Amino acid sequence: LISKLSAVPQITAILGNDTTNWNVRELSGGNLNLVHAIDAAAGSVCVKQSLPYFRALGEDSPMPLDRIVFEHRAIREHARHMPNMLPQILYFDADLFLMVMEYLDGYTELRKLLMASKTCSSLGEQLGDYLARTMFLTSDLALSPSERRLQAASMAGNWGMFKWMEELCYTDPYTHRPRNSWNSPYLDDIASEFRRDGPLKRAVARLKEKYMADPAVLVHGDLHTDSILVGENSIRVIDMEHSFYGPFGYDFGHLLGHLFLNYFSQNKDATTFKKQTPYQAWLVDVIQNLWQHFVTEFTLLWNTSRTGGSYPVELFEGCGDLKSSTLALKTLVQRTLHNAAGFTGIEMNRRILGWGAVPDFENIEDAYCRSITERRCLNFGRYLILNANRFQDI
Amino acid sequence: LISKLSAVPQITAILGNDTTNWNVRELSGGNLNLVHAIDAAAGSVCVKQSLPYFRALGEDSPMPLDRIVFEHRAIREHARHMPNMLPQILYFDADLFLMVMEYLDGYTELRKLLMASKTCSSLGEQLGDYLARTMFLTSDLALSPSERRLQAASMAGNWGMFKWMEELCYTDPYTHRPRNSWNSPYLDDIASEFRRDGPLKRAVARLKEKYMADPAVLVHGDLHTDSILVGENSIRVIDMEHSFYGPFGYDFGHLLGHLFLNYFSQNKDATTFKKQTPYQAWLVDVIQNLWQHFVTEFTLLWNTSRTGGSYPVELFEGCGDLKSSTLALKTLVQRTLHNAAGFTGIEMNRRILGWGAVPDFENIEDAYCRSITERRCLNFGRYLILNANRFQDI
Repeated sequence: LISKLSAVPQITAILGNDTTNWNVRELSGGNLNLVHAIDAAAGSVCVKQSLPYFRALGEDSPMPLDRIVFEHRAIREHARHMPNMLPQILYFDADLFLMVMEYLDGYTELRKLLMASKTCSSLGEQLGDYLARTMFLTSDLALSPSERRLQAASMAGNWGMFKWMEELCYTDPYTHRPRNSWNSPYLDDIASEFRRDGPLKRAVARLKEKYMADPAVLVHGDLHTDSILVGENSIRVIDMEHSFYGPFGYDFGHLLGHLFLNYFSQNKDATTFKKQTPYQAWLVDVIQNLWQHFVTEFTLLWNTSRTGGSYPVELFEGCGDLKSSTLALKTLVQRTLHNAAGFTGIEMNRRILGWGAVPDFENIEDAYCRSITERRCLNFGRYLILNANRFQDI
Repeated sequence: LISKLSAVPQITAILGNDTTNWNVRELSGGNLNLVHAIDAAAGSVCVKQSLPYFRALGEDSPMPLDRIVFEHRAIREHARHMPNMLPQILYFDADLFLMVMEYLDGYTELRKLLMASKTCSSLGEQLGDYLARTMFLTSDLALSPSERRLQAASMAGNWGMFKWMEELCYTDPYTHRPRNSWNSPYLDDIASEFRRDGPLKRAVARLKEKYMADPAVLVHGDLHTDSILVGENSIRVIDMEHSFYGPFGYDFGHLLGHLFLNYFSQNKDATTFKKQTPYQAWLVDVIQNLWQHFVTEFTLLWNTSRTGGSYPVELFEGCGDLKSSTLALKTLVQRTLHNAAGFTGIEMNRRILGWGAVPDFENIEDAYCRSITERRCLNFGRYLILNANRFQDI
């Protein structure tokens, strides 16, 4: 492998040609992949390779290797629209299911910052722009319908990732599963409530329909706070193996879900349960900035880059009807918000009741205290799902 | 070609082996294809071949030949779910873009029957079953999500047909196009109204979004009354080159659209404009039967064949919650009806204002008289589009 990589000019430009100076070092690899750094005197690169099974669950849970092919395609596509927020790809080998990327030195996972109650600047602004641009520019608003259809079709085969999400997000938390795990016995009552809540399960099933069959835009697919790396002056979005063509607003669900999970986790004991901490106030600011920047950038694109088959300029601005154009935009932004609210609830519920707990709550040692904040997450998640279509703004 | 076909046992079983007895005869071929019969003493077969241009518009309007590949795939798929209503395919040659099918002797286009005010039996029942089965059994309600995704992806490349529909149905009637043609000067005022109607154009654009990117079920794609052949004791559905994965209820749009167009065309002069004729009453019966049979069959499938990823039995009936299952079904049937209403309006408007007038109105010789019924169609079509989401039942 090393000899193969040493023939790639983009890699030797960083590591140098003398492979005896290359040192391989394993990085923390998430649940699904092998991730290594190769270090040399002059610099480092990051090597990501698919594993044929789900790393976190062991070799019994096979996963198709070609997810990295979909990830590669998605990174390339998002990078076209937001070049500074995606890792630079130095080499891709579809036969080895291997991708070499720039090594992101000095970056920290957003989750780590949040768990340490550290702020960072322009988070909402940058992510709002990223979401607006990647949604708009991969949709029928910008692309010709046949191009969007073929793009969506090219992402349809990533079945392992789909199946995983379908089960973990839309089924497990609402039924009995051995791998479910919640803070028992404190949350047993509300877990049982969720399994018997007909209106909630209908709303979840409707959101699952959208997850499965609403291929409007190329989404990141798993934009939680470990998929966002924060550097000194920039932000990078990584880990796109869950990418697919999905609903407007889908990525907001994961992002807001994990921001809210962290928000609730900031109330660490009984004395603070009722008060908003300064850090929580900052988180609310981030969320509002995120939405405002999304709307601003999306509106700009609507007014300047609507070259696709959807809401054609010819039928609106083209005949002087600015009012209808504005109303159509408003309706679409609302639909995005409704989807965002629903998928936020989906993500919060599954992280509390199902497999894949987030570490944000580990800061609260006492299990009962923890259950109070977790219960608030579940109540909030359920509320978002049941009332998703009522939201007007953030 | 004849020698090639004479090597196909399914064909010689009908025509015999002696090709000197085979006679080729051109059939009326619609707008898009060459259609011939081959007759022999023992029987006939039907040969359909794609033309590289739009037959009705001449050689200047190129059309991709592989639409017949998509048609073949769609017929095969629908035939799995409704074997007696699709033509039997005897031979398919993807290189020649050629399909040989059973010759449907003694069948008449439904439109011809309607134009002659002739009734036929169990029309609504059979078409209701066809629509229920082909919708349900190709959707996420019956298929695994990954299977439905790949099926939908396999139909995404039929760009020529898509483009044609996108322009003719969702753009042309609402703007100026040289190929538009309506009953001028009588309809000039309402045609101009449509071009300036902001709420109408927004609703049309929303329906176009669904046409482009709501791949829920494998639809026929052009189920107007020439695509339905009525025989002595059976009905056949033909001409599936517009087939694609589309919204629940999409096919109702074309079918109901053309039934309503014919309904309005039955009022041939000033003395009958206000009265419902017996034939119109029969048409209303057909439409109600169609919807009732659709709902009945769809409900049966919901209760017996819900094996897919959508609304999983485990989360509803599986834990004794029949009520939520019934409510979820009701909501989905309503969504189907809302889509049906919207697409019905789309089809009616485009047939009156755009290219592709239907012959149903040719029965009304006087242009002014004709404009009265055509105007009623436009008002009805606009009403359906603007109020699509309010309908509860037919």
